[in-house]
Amino acid sequence: MATSTTAPLTGYLSDNAAGTAPEILAAMAEASTGLAAPYGNDPTSARLTTLMAGVFERPVDVFVVGTGSAANGLALAACTPPWGSILTHPDGHITNDEAGAPEFFTDGAKIVLVDGPRSTMDPTALRAAVVRRRGDVHSVQPSVVSLTQVTETGSVHTLDEVREVSTIAHDAGLRVHMDGARFANALVALECTPAEMTWRAGVDILSFGATKNGTMTAEAIVSFDPSLSTELAFRHKRGGQLTSKMRFQSAQLVAYLENDLWMRHARNANAMAARLREGLRPVTGVEVVGDASANMSYFRFPAALTQALHDRGFTFYDDRWEPGVVRLVTSFAHTARDVDAFVDAGRALAIID
Amino acid sequence: MATSTTAPLTGYLSDNAAGTAPEILAAMAEASTGLAAPYGNDPTSARLTTLMAGVFERPVDVFVVGTGSAANGLALAACTPPWGSILTHPDGHITNDEAGAPEFFTDGAKIVLVDGPRSTMDPTALRAAVVRRRGDVHSVQPSVVSLTQVTETGSVHTLDEVREVSTIAHDAGLRVHMDGARFANALVALECTPAEMTWRAGVDILSFGATKNGTMTAEAIVSFDPSLSTELAFRHKRGGQLTSKMRFQSAQLVAYLENDLWMRHARNANAMAARLREGLRPVTGVEVVGDASANMSYFRFPAALTQALHDRGFTFYDDRWEPGVVRLVTSFAHTARDVDAFVDAGRALAIID
Amino acid sequence: MATSTTAPLTGYLSDNAAGTAPEILAAMAEASTGLAAPYGNDPTSARLTTLMAGVFERPVDVFVVGTGSAANGLALAACTPPWGSILTHPDGHITNDEAGAPEFFTDGAKIVLVDGPRSTMDPTALRAAVVRRRGDVHSVQPSVVSLTQVTETGSVHTLDEVREVSTIAHDAGLRVHMDGARFANALVALECTPAEMTWRAGVDILSFGATKNGTMTAEAIVSFDPSLSTELAFRHKRGGQLTSKMRFQSAQLVAYLENDLWMRHARNANAMAARLREGLRPVTGVEVVGDASANMSYFRFPAALTQALHDRGFTFYDDRWEPGVVRLVTSFAHTARDVDAFVDAGRALAIID
Amino acid sequence: MATSTTAPLTGYLSDNAAGTAPEILAAMAEASTGLAAPYGNDPTSARLTTLMAGVFERPVDVFVVGTGSAANGLALAACTPPWGSILTHPDGHITNDEAGAPEFFTDGAKIVLVDGPRSTMDPTALRAAVVRRRGDVHSVQPSVVSLTQVTETGSVHTLDEVREVSTIAHDAGLRVHMDGARFANALVALECTPAEMTWRAGVDILSFGATKNGTMTAEAIVSFDPSLSTELAFRHKRGGQLTSKMRFQSAQLVAYLENDLWMRHARNANAMAARLREGLRPVTGVEVVGDASANMSYFRFPAALTQALHDRGFTFYDDRWEPGVVRLVTSFAHTARDVDAFVDAGRALAIID
Repeated sequence: MATSTTAPLTGYLSDNAAGTAPEILAAMAEASTGLAAPYGNDPTSARLTTLMAGVFERPVDVFVVGTGSAANGLALAACTPPWGSILTHPDGHITNDEAGAPEFFTDGAKIVLVDGPRSTMDPTALRAAVVRRRGDVHSVQPSVVSLTQVTETGSVHTLDEVREVSTIAHDAGLRVHMDGARFANALVALECTPAEMTWRAGVDILSFGATKNGTMTAEAIVSFDPSLSTELAFRHKRGGQLTSKMRFQSAQLVAYLENDLWMRHARNANAMAARLREGLRPVTGVEVVGDASANMSYFRFPAALTQALHDRGFTFYDDRWEPGVVRLVTSFAHTARDVDAFVDAGRALAIID
Repeated sequence: MATSTTAPLTGYLSDNAAGTAPEILAAMAEASTGLAAPYGNDPTSARLTTLMAGVFERPVDVFVVGTGSAANGLALAACTPPWGSILTHPDGHITNDEAGAPEFFTDGAKIVLVDGPRSTMDPTALRAAVVRRRGDVHSVQPSVVSLTQVTETGSVHTLDEVREVSTIAHDAGLRVHMDGARFANALVALECTPAEMTWRAGVDILSFGATKNGTMTAEAIVSFDPSLSTELAFRHKRGGQLTSKMRFQSAQLVAYLENDLWMRHARNANAMAARLREGLRPVTGVEVVGDASANMSYFRFPAALTQALHDRGFTFYDDRWEPGVVRLVTSFAHTARDVDAFVDAGRALAIID
Repeated sequence: MATSTTAPLTGYLSDNAAGTAPEILAAMAEASTGLAAPYGNDPTSARLTTLMAGVFERPVDVFVVGTGSAANGLALAACTPPWGSILTHPDGHITNDEAGAPEFFTDGAKIVLVDGPRSTMDPTALRAAVVRRRGDVHSVQPSVVSLTQVTETGSVHTLDEVREVSTIAHDAGLRVHMDGARFANALVALECTPAEMTWRAGVDILSFGATKNGTMTAEAIVSFDPSLSTELAFRHKRGGQLTSKMRFQSAQLVAYLENDLWMRHARNANAMAARLREGLRPVTGVEVVGDASANMSYFRFPAALTQALHDRGFTFYDDRWEPGVVRLVTSFAHTARDVDAFVDAGRALAIID
Repeated sequence: MATSTTAPLTGYLSDNAAGTAPEILAAMAEASTGLAAPYGNDPTSARLTTLMAGVFERPVDVFVVGTGSAANGLALAACTPPWGSILTHPDGHITNDEAGAPEFFTDGAKIVLVDGPRSTMDPTALRAAVVRRRGDVHSVQPSVVSLTQVTETGSVHTLDEVREVSTIAHDAGLRVHMDGARFANALVALECTPAEMTWRAGVDILSFGATKNGTMTAEAIVSFDPSLSTELAFRHKRGGQLTSKMRFQSAQLVAYLENDLWMRHARNANAMAARLREGLRPVTGVEVVGDASANMSYFRFPAALTQALHDRGFTFYDDRWEPGVVRLVTSFAHTARDVDAFVDAGRALAIID
């Protein structure tokens, strides 16, 4: 869709392998004109805040950052004291894949795991966890619940699930953080509005992922709780995230939000994933696993098929979960032609096998 | 020079107010093609390391970051334990303008100030400071010396000065960090090579500033000490600086280094500053102060002149130092026409005044 | 034994409820004579190091601290970088009962849980955990294994178990920490020497618990790895544990170690626990649970029995584990008379019930 | 006074070289009787809080700690965010002698120095410092002022000085911490009440020093601001300061406060210091320097006199300040006989010299 290539894309390792969109490059070029006030005091950054307020149908505070790890770390630090705990699912990116960034940004808070199906926290377990040893000076204090949307296994929290998590958290005085690394893909999967999936469902602060869906070096923290903003501003600077030429990050996000680009990107990514699942489901020996409804799909492949596809140059992860399980991630950049080439190869190689 | 504008640039607040160069935008667009491995495992990032090795005439380790604060914080954290001290000049950016980022990234190391003329540390004072209470468990332990090149008051450490600082530090077992926020401008001022100004003069690790001189969202840590690299890699990730689409930052730095773009930018910025100083020196009531040889110049202006220039739309800082002292910073984007417009206005308004 | 009381002791909540021994009080008084160099530079502290070297049959470094939490936190901080992980059993005190002290002292390292029977880490699970994502910059790095001796559920790691944990850890380059909150009780249970249970079995650093077994305000870190000592000295001071009048803590530990006092205390505590188990085992409805061989025993009690004993003034925890499970902890201060009073009451009340 | 010795005390290095009082030892022994609830839930600790409320003529929260460094670190951590600054005099213990403990406990706050005569902060300089770059996200934010009473050079803040510091701090929204390492000595010097010197003069939180004046292993944080107490309780535990057998620390402080023991100790220490100053003032070549009114005195001694006194076995620091300046510290344990022996020796040796 966004990137024109002659050869089909053969990579399904992650949506972060895609480039960016021409619209975003153009916005960067445009933002480069003339001098601009640094550190976010430029018109493009102001425009971003306005756009975000429109997207979320309410005033918000926006902190532009360079990585999802920084977004998560800073957002969580604003929601927990160092002696607090962060409740999240064992599959969560924050506990597995950030080399301790949440512990770093929070000055040593503790991540406490709450298991459950489909990479969502079981409400009963969560209800117990939010009050566990509350007020007991010998224990870390439950302070914030963090849920990942889309989850790391490709499922999507329903609005009811987000609301239930939020209610449980708020009833016990905890805040709610959403790690929205694939925020747009979740919106498309749920066919709901950004407001519905966040603050209307009880989310207090959001890591607004954009890179995987088309920006280059820009993500954002979107805060729905103005009481966190002063603290966030200092943590943001102190955490090495306040860029001098912020206009170049804001411009990416502005272009991303304008003209529905982000939704078009996410719709494409999700549609391509659905096309993959539909195309591969009938293949002999292939099984769709998990509960994918966004742009990340898990399958069971015969080992020979995996090998044969790798031999043809298709890239995807196959060694990280149980044996035989592979993951295919599509992005805004994948086209129907790309996906069909994969499906055709899968069918052909499965037969041979 | 780099940016074509119809109206003259009238801003001299900081070089970080400038945009970027067309060469860099073009490189971003080119880098966007196709899929690429994330987290720095892409060909553009590999190319950057190769280029840096060429620039510095030796193998180096490169960690791309989004801000100078992150570069400084991470580099210093690799050079001091939490109970160590960082010796720097009272004018240093790390102690005044980063909201405690060094303290954050080092887990609480202490910045100890060593005064001296021209924003450089007095060698005698430094010699005392590096051994102060060494081995005394009641005191923080001197661990790293950090010097800023160009200094915050526009002066440039001579090669002899860098060498002397390094020798004093190394003799006492401390490491040497250079905050090179205006690294290229200093090279031009000294007419020396990057190797001469860094590792050949004893610098162990460098915050390689690029944003002020033309990139958008990319700076780098350049390490000359391979023993620091494993630690830096983990700190870099944990500190929220390991971007997934790093190719878009690396592409900026590659374009910056290729075809001598960075040197052309810095030569222009320095030349424009010299032109400003030469143009303004004869103006009645104006005095050049400090020891500027790069792109940041300080002047004493009559208050009425400052006011009159502001009224004409020229922007520059005048309220941060002693009364009457103003700062003018030029960048790669300023042209002789821009500067001449400022000088002409200064002359005209001084006469009126 | 140590404390003479007229009424029997009726408390079994924890061994930390006991007072201290007359020998230790006498040593404090003696240590108070005259002036002494502060911060551990006194003869009593020197004597302690000598005694510890004798106890462990090798040179050791000793850092006196005020709490087990400080001992654990400082020892672990010397064994892991902030981006490291600490592997321990889910029952461990460090992960449950220290309000995040390990995370605080380590500047944000992560505790990773390795389950297994009898509150010991399953070797197969541990073998996988020590190499998990080693060298992967996106993940915390396994750095130290911490085992609790006596465990929090009253079992004691056998020497073979300690050796196996150590071998697994060392083979993967991790260090081994022992949380010896009930170190002496474990020695008595295993009938082995301090050397056998620690460095000869691969332990690198030990939290030498003494308070529960009879000191007042003194515990110690005992390090078998001299390469950690400089770092520990600074962390110890910086962590607020270097007392000026350390002689008063050292004196407690000296008296504790001299004349076999600590072993006599532990033998008594363990014997009283065995007497409790033997006495209560035949009681109707009572079941000894777990694998107690030191001074902490778990039982299943009928609810009515628990209530009736509480009504008679006996104190013990009954609400922290599964329903019906109670914990009885004996200390150096409990006598056979005390224990027999409990057993008699238990028998009488069980019959009534 | 408190300690009976046959040979005169010859040590004047520090008041922390003294032992403890028989009253305090007796209280420890008494506290040892029977079982007691751990972690401060014992009657002795409750008694301490009651006594402290009496001493300060208002409700207070008391957190018993083992060192002054911990008291300072924890108290400051409750008063500043990590991006805050702590304003104190360059002579302050917290900035010079705690190996970065304040930086550790505050998770990296910055100590900013405000100079002034007599180791007190100049009010004009402080007035500027408390508002410096307030709200500027690039700068640490002034958050707490910390004053040392008695100062490190032996002077004592007058009540007017404490009030002025507090007013300046509070007017700008900062909190006030007093490092009362020699709290009792200051009270005696000022002949005022504890309330007058603390909360009535604007102090929000106090490091209540007791060790130098006669306890063994016990100091306390006394908080006059109930809003800090929950946070302090968690920091206290997490910081490794919540002892299980706290009764043994509380008992020291109870005995210290009861029967005016602490005041008797401090009156003796101050009187002995005055006796030293009076005795030495007339000696040829000796000059009293500084502004001592408590128990720490500075003198200028001829080098030969210093050497001769050292040769006779008298110990005191002479190498830490300008050449020729020596420090003599007296404690509760020094008697008139001790002091007279020093004075006599000084006179005799000065004559010989």
